[in-house]
Amino acid sequence: MCHDRVRFIALEGPEACGKSTQIQQLEKRLRGLGFSVVVVREPGGTLLGEAVRELFRHTPVAKTIVARAELLLFAAARAQLVEEVIRPALERGAWVVTDRFSESSLVYQGTVRGLPWSEVNMVNRWATQGLLPSLTLVLDLPISELRKRLIARKDHGNDQMEEEFAGHLEEIRKGYLTLAREEPERIRVVEAHGSPEELGQKIWEVVCDAFCLR
Amino acid sequence: MCHDRVRFIALEGPEACGKSTQIQQLEKRLRGLGFSVVVVREPGGTLLGEAVRELFRHTPVAKTIVARAELLLFAAARAQLVEEVIRPALERGAWVVTDRFSESSLVYQGTVRGLPWSEVNMVNRWATQGLLPSLTLVLDLPISELRKRLIARKDHGNDQMEEEFAGHLEEIRKGYLTLAREEPERIRVVEAHGSPEELGQKIWEVVCDAFCLR
Repeated sequence: MCHDRVRFIALEGPEACGKSTQIQQLEKRLRGLGFSVVVVREPGGTLLGEAVRELFRHTPVAKTIVARAELLLFAAARAQLVEEVIRPALERGAWVVTDRFSESSLVYQGTVRGLPWSEVNMVNRWATQGLLPSLTLVLDLPISELRKRLIARKDHGNDQMEEEFAGHLEEIRKGYLTLAREEPERIRVVEAHGSPEELGQKIWEVVCDAFCLR
Repeated sequence: MCHDRVRFIALEGPEACGKSTQIQQLEKRLRGLGFSVVVVREPGGTLLGEAVRELFRHTPVAKTIVARAELLLFAAARAQLVEEVIRPALERGAWVVTDRFSESSLVYQGTVRGLPWSEVNMVNRWATQGLLPSLTLVLDLPISELRKRLIARKDHGNDQMEEEFAGHLEEIRKGYLTLAREEPERIRVVEAHGSPEELGQKIWEVVCDAFCLR
């Protein structure tokens, strides 16, 4: 059965949990098996997605945005990404690996901003036409470690939104862990300490299992 | 009963139907009765709304936007406008007159772009938390007259979206007329030919009736 799974993987977790590095490693490993791989990020990956990302980086605007509007903006970027990039890639047989997807909205606009998960799910489902990653990997780290990493990053121009959410690390972590408990098959928590190589190997094993790659 | 109506009026219709001029007149008449009036436009009226408007004016991005994302962007701007401007204004007893609201999405993203009305309604309702204008005035003009006006405007920097929708005037008109037939009490069609003053008088009579202003 796992051979038939849609080849769509999301990496999730709070800022600085190591998603970007791991996505690069995962891409390399999949390519190493001869697969075609498309890597995207949210919001982004399309002209509209990048414009929405810019909007959130523009402090005067970003500061005013209410929770509902925030969710709808992410949903707009997601709808565009699905229709323009993800679906076509999956249809031609490529793997798609995304840095964040619907679960980010459940955690950030749901758990943190307070919108009910049922409503976030409704908007997500409509935006994505029901598309979900077959496998969502949540990179989990102790809050103290995340804080250390966020401080080390501080000079590298993190944006308004990133800064705001840094005050909510406990809720974010709890949100992700709750999601994983609700869908343990599809959403897997990976302990993300250790070297990037060790973590990469752990992630690779989960992916191989989930998609019957060996 | 009409005394209790939420003092929220939307003007709707295709581009060049005369909404802006009529909104000015309506504002003046309401102020003449001593009311406080807040005038807004969609998308716009907030920092986010104006940023979304800019996005639609930016041709390279605007050209790529898919229907679902388009609706979600308008919905984001609408959610922001409701929460930041419209609700607070209504709560302090002001009138709110808006240039476009939820009906625009039903007509443009629904009728023209092909999204089902039931889905557009669902997104609208969520974005606005169920808020609807007590009175929506649809300014109706024959297509030939609209075409003439659009050509006369041609030099005045109309945007990507305006241009695109100019090719769908019949559908837009039909969409509005269908909406008005479905909710004849709340959505009123006003024949919009004649001088701006005559039209202003006609609109004023409908408003006075709907809100028991005399």
